[in-house]
Amino acid sequence: MNTNSLSAQIINALHSVCGEAPVSLHDPVFKGNEWNYVKNCLDSTFVSSVGEYVNRFEVNLAKYTGSKYAVAVVNGTAALHIALIMAGVKPDDEVLIPTLTFVATANAVCYCGAIPHFVDIKEQNLGIDPTSLRIWLENISEQQNGICINKLTGRTIRALLPMHAFGHPCAMNELKKIAIEYNLFMVEDAAESLGSWYGNKHTGTIGEIGILSFNGNKIITTGGGGAILTNDSELAGRAKHITTTAKKPHKWAFEHDEVGFNYRMPNINAALGCAQLEGISGFVKSKRKLFVRYKTAFSEIPLLRLIAEPIGCKSNYWLQTILLDRSIENYRDSIIEDTNNAGFKTRPSWILMHHLKQFVNCPKAPLAVAESVSKRLINLPSSANLV
Amino acid sequence: MNTNSLSAQIINALHSVCGEAPVSLHDPVFKGNEWNYVKNCLDSTFVSSVGEYVNRFEVNLAKYTGSKYAVAVVNGTAALHIALIMAGVKPDDEVLIPTLTFVATANAVCYCGAIPHFVDIKEQNLGIDPTSLRIWLENISEQQNGICINKLTGRTIRALLPMHAFGHPCAMNELKKIAIEYNLFMVEDAAESLGSWYGNKHTGTIGEIGILSFNGNKIITTGGGGAILTNDSELAGRAKHITTTAKKPHKWAFEHDEVGFNYRMPNINAALGCAQLEGISGFVKSKRKLFVRYKTAFSEIPLLRLIAEPIGCKSNYWLQTILLDRSIENYRDSIIEDTNNAGFKTRPSWILMHHLKQFVNCPKAPLAVAESVSKRLINLPSSANLV
Repeated sequence: MNTNSLSAQIINALHSVCGEAPVSLHDPVFKGNEWNYVKNCLDSTFVSSVGEYVNRFEVNLAKYTGSKYAVAVVNGTAALHIALIMAGVKPDDEVLIPTLTFVATANAVCYCGAIPHFVDIKEQNLGIDPTSLRIWLENISEQQNGICINKLTGRTIRALLPMHAFGHPCAMNELKKIAIEYNLFMVEDAAESLGSWYGNKHTGTIGEIGILSFNGNKIITTGGGGAILTNDSELAGRAKHITTTAKKPHKWAFEHDEVGFNYRMPNINAALGCAQLEGISGFVKSKRKLFVRYKTAFSEIPLLRLIAEPIGCKSNYWLQTILLDRSIENYRDSIIEDTNNAGFKTRPSWILMHHLKQFVNCPKAPLAVAESVSKRLINLPSSANLV
Repeated sequence: MNTNSLSAQIINALHSVCGEAPVSLHDPVFKGNEWNYVKNCLDSTFVSSVGEYVNRFEVNLAKYTGSKYAVAVVNGTAALHIALIMAGVKPDDEVLIPTLTFVATANAVCYCGAIPHFVDIKEQNLGIDPTSLRIWLENISEQQNGICINKLTGRTIRALLPMHAFGHPCAMNELKKIAIEYNLFMVEDAAESLGSWYGNKHTGTIGEIGILSFNGNKIITTGGGGAILTNDSELAGRAKHITTTAKKPHKWAFEHDEVGFNYRMPNINAALGCAQLEGISGFVKSKRKLFVRYKTAFSEIPLLRLIAEPIGCKSNYWLQTILLDRSIENYRDSIIEDTNNAGFKTRPSWILMHHLKQFVNCPKAPLAVAESVSKRLINLPSSANLV
């Protein structure tokens, strides 16, 4: 088989699943109360930092995810920044993150003055691999008074930050065991996995603190937005406080009791979010159906496979993903070029974090799986309205 | 005169200007294309990081302010953070800011790892006083290879950050002279002063870089939002780059070439901003008219004065402000209590930055004027729709 014939087969499959080109990677769907709530918000004039939609969005997010608390913020990056502060991440600490992730995960570590420490992934679910992580930590870390020290750098490893790539839950039980054993605070990056469940627990609610994103390309959108999830009332209260300029409640006085952030979600964005959240079950259903259609359409094409949800998990299939066989990994770029030229928006993996020049000197475990996967991964059009 | 009779006179004046209570401190006015543009944005589904309203809002902001470039961001605090990075502010630098300001000014300095250095204000315009600033710098600073060093702390003083309080332009010519003479980068905090002019120059366009805010209580709002203004194409390009995750332009690849931020303004917020900006001249006109009405209504009340625009400037009168005479400064709290109880939303000055516990050990000049003003200042209801 050559690359042209493979591209042609993939384009045929995309055509049979998605219909006529052009087809986007991921469009939001506004078919519920989006207009009503946004118009109501404008009519009230409460479009900004005060307003009922923010409260309602937080309550409904908590209800849907089964988290005790949800704090809405301006985007997923801000949520990660605050979650890491809550985790006690300090300047010169290290935070274990997968090298296969969107850059926000690594940036948020840097905002704390801390250093990302990159670890490898499993090919099955594209999340941090507990087996290689455990071996790595056995080799390079030691415990000093209940603190995990990187013997190679002398720095504290403060937290473990798994990311549920493209909506597929990581091996959370195993990762949680490691976090407890090595005294690591667990922050869960569920930016891509609203609607994904690990057993009967929603992603983002298994670590001590989790985060969501509602960027325009996510399963639901608020324009820009994110949220912090936690079952700990103290963490939730503190997250709300420092995302709202650390202002002490008062009828009119402006007393701020620490260096806080202006990270609150505006009410107009929350209004959109309330309507979008009403549709979440339908979106998840459509995207899971889309996976089944892709599975059928791609079943005849050799040397590639679709990433399926891990056993025991339910994935939102945020972005449908194919992995090429190693034997044809050098076909990836032409497949992406050809499918985009045919009007089907596809894209490669993010460049691995440890290859970005700003992170090239950060500590890292052996990263062989991520290196291989990143050369073979292609995301396919994934909008809920394709079904 | 006792405090009860003074409160009664003030409530009468508020009544005659604002009409029936309850009256807010500052409401936005949505009487133009707000719903059209927001609806159009929802219909396009481009509500997030991509979309035409962001570009249009930036172009129209630049046109209105006479700035060569405008970069829309998620809020005024984010704009300040980026402006200070553009100014070259590094960890352990000092930045000169007024002690009378909203906490975001000081917080943004801290986000850079730098230290706010508080200076005094002029009673006339409530902005940094160039005369006392010059004396202070003469005493405590020295130049070393074109860098301004604080002799008391040994740290570099990198930037001067005047803030146009309540919309009234600072003495920019004098401050600019000091900035040039002392090798300080000038960042202008025009969060409150969209629609205010210093001579024929819009506030925010006089320093090397300026910022605006479109929070819900500002003269125009985008829900949450801000902008960076500059005439320097290199600074503008760099500001756009690092506010959009420092991603290099590419059809699909994710290459980020430095630690960037997720600070872009969502398109749905920009849609609201485009409509609001169409109304700016009308809002300024109304708020200036409101000042004239307050002036008449308060003219008979002894021992207080309304803050008027500085000579040679045109103020947007964002928040109408009265200053009590020193002899009755201890009446302030009961006046605020009484007017709020009567349904007229008034508020005191922000607590001075050097009194907040997180900033109490920061360097500071003598701050006698700010100390006195902050005890005597009251903001009055100021919405454009009161006229």
